[in-house]
Amino acid sequence: MRALRFDGAFLRLMTDHAAPPVTSGETAVRVLMAGICETDLQILQGYMGFQGILGHEFVGIAESGPLAGERVVGEINCGCGRCATCLAGVPTHCPHRTVLGILGRDGAFAERLSLPLGNLHRVPESVPSEWAVFVEPLAAACRIVEQCTRVRDASIVVLGDGRLGNLCAQVLKRHGGEVLVLGRHEAKLARLARLGIETDLATARTPDHRADLVVDCTGSASGLAAALQWVRPRGCVVLKTTIAGPHAQSLAPVVIDEVTLLGSRCGPFLPAIQLLANREVDVESLLDSTWPLAEGLAAMEAAKTPGAMKVLLRMEPRPADE
Amino acid sequence: MRALRFDGAFLRLMTDHAAPPVTSGETAVRVLMAGICETDLQILQGYMGFQGILGHEFVGIAESGPLAGERVVGEINCGCGRCATCLAGVPTHCPHRTVLGILGRDGAFAERLSLPLGNLHRVPESVPSEWAVFVEPLAAACRIVEQCTRVRDASIVVLGDGRLGNLCAQVLKRHGGEVLVLGRHEAKLARLARLGIETDLATARTPDHRADLVVDCTGSASGLAAALQWVRPRGCVVLKTTIAGPHAQSLAPVVIDEVTLLGSRCGPFLPAIQLLANREVDVESLLDSTWPLAEGLAAMEAAKTPGAMKVLLRMEPRPADE
Repeated sequence: MRALRFDGAFLRLMTDHAAPPVTSGETAVRVLMAGICETDLQILQGYMGFQGILGHEFVGIAESGPLAGERVVGEINCGCGRCATCLAGVPTHCPHRTVLGILGRDGAFAERLSLPLGNLHRVPESVPSEWAVFVEPLAAACRIVEQCTRVRDASIVVLGDGRLGNLCAQVLKRHGGEVLVLGRHEAKLARLARLGIETDLATARTPDHRADLVVDCTGSASGLAAALQWVRPRGCVVLKTTIAGPHAQSLAPVVIDEVTLLGSRCGPFLPAIQLLANREVDVESLLDSTWPLAEGLAAMEAAKTPGAMKVLLRMEPRPADE
Repeated sequence: MRALRFDGAFLRLMTDHAAPPVTSGETAVRVLMAGICETDLQILQGYMGFQGILGHEFVGIAESGPLAGERVVGEINCGCGRCATCLAGVPTHCPHRTVLGILGRDGAFAERLSLPLGNLHRVPESVPSEWAVFVEPLAAACRIVEQCTRVRDASIVVLGDGRLGNLCAQVLKRHGGEVLVLGRHEAKLARLARLGIETDLATARTPDHRADLVVDCTGSASGLAAALQWVRPRGCVVLKTTIAGPHAQSLAPVVIDEVTLLGSRCGPFLPAIQLLANREVDVESLLDSTWPLAEGLAAMEAAKTPGAMKVLLRMEPRPADE
């Protein structure tokens, strides 16, 4: 099959990669579309030391098992099912886990992938495939609501106007937060403003140590320092940014202001699917461009372009691609 | 009066320093004893940019107001009483606050100090002055119990066998935690072991990502990295260490493991006084040496010695000192 594989140094388009083995309890999925995420770009910089087929945001058709023929999206963490962490109901943190396209498991930038049946969720007919690709990052945004005790009426600053910042802002606004998004790109901020969310250029505002909650979606090592200037004493900073390199940041302000830093990763799929099915979150305006898998290398370059929104890969060759 | 003053470059023993002004609502206190804290040593390294009389752990005799003649200890944060933070009941985080011996207010390494009446607490007769000096750091240890939802039966690792690590371990054990203290000093660990607390050399144990709660009392920039190796996924790391310089630490593990980092500073005095009055916490074994204020410079050097425990200053000149 065709697949976009990172060998630790180079990203290559394979044309004759073996399909992933479908072991017991797993379901083969024919991938329809996949989204390129900031994490994929970080992996190319060495993050996680991953080698294999990239990609963890996808929609596809289950090819085996009880869901055969259904359109599905899939949770990306695969626990061992036997350790104390899995038995405690937290397989996403299983120390032996594999993670689709990130850790020990080939990903979705390929014609086929395999995931445990329990990871897969049906996509309602009302949700187009282009939207369904957003379920994974949207679930990551929903995770914040699970973690923070109070979102309703909270004063919230989202740092970063990229794909994840946009989704976090929409989810937090939907849950009653008073959201301000600060970013660097006027066009991206304008998209959020059209959805009724307050926005501004980060350079236009002076941090005031007043926010109850700050969400760092900058994807930059400097995000934490900025967040600590916006958050109020005893407030909370949600860290969504995973970067390969070290922060060079004094944590004394965290201690002095008794700030809570909350690491936040993957989230619940069902609320995310529901938000899309109910059209309570807009992802249409986040779509950038769609590329056939055969042009995957160019698509990755497009995703790296400053200002790029969600770049999609389409796995099914159209007649024009052949 | 005599006072130990830091001018931003040098620590000097003043012999004719003016007594602090006692403004409206404040109480003059004749200092009996004061303790040298790691924060004092950090200030000499540039932390907080403080210039003035050092010292924030003390016991003294109130000289004015309703508490006149009583032996007292004092909370160190002085809010403005008028801002939104103070009116919300959190004067310890008032943006206009002064902090005894740390920020904008002369401290306790002097014959007299001044604090708002509301900051002062009577010391029960059963608590010797040498113990009362520990109320402030013991309150900081009690703060962890306020912040963490579950201490009882929690698996807790305290990193650091110094003064604060010792107090945190005792308080957490007293609240039902299963505490392991890891340190570098066999003598300090032995003191904790005699109190029935499990201890080991940090170098003797391999971190296992299993602790529900890790308390960083290392006083070192490397403490966070170690804490992140001990804490379980979705566990909590309490940051007690304030250091002047930056951490050079990737926070990716915080995000991936969804760890909560809790900044933790000053705590409640009443539970701390109660623990001492009830002899539920041992501070006797933490006493190192006691120096007259006139030998304050030598006392600071003694406090810097690796392995030093709590070094005290005695303000009242004894006949032998004259």
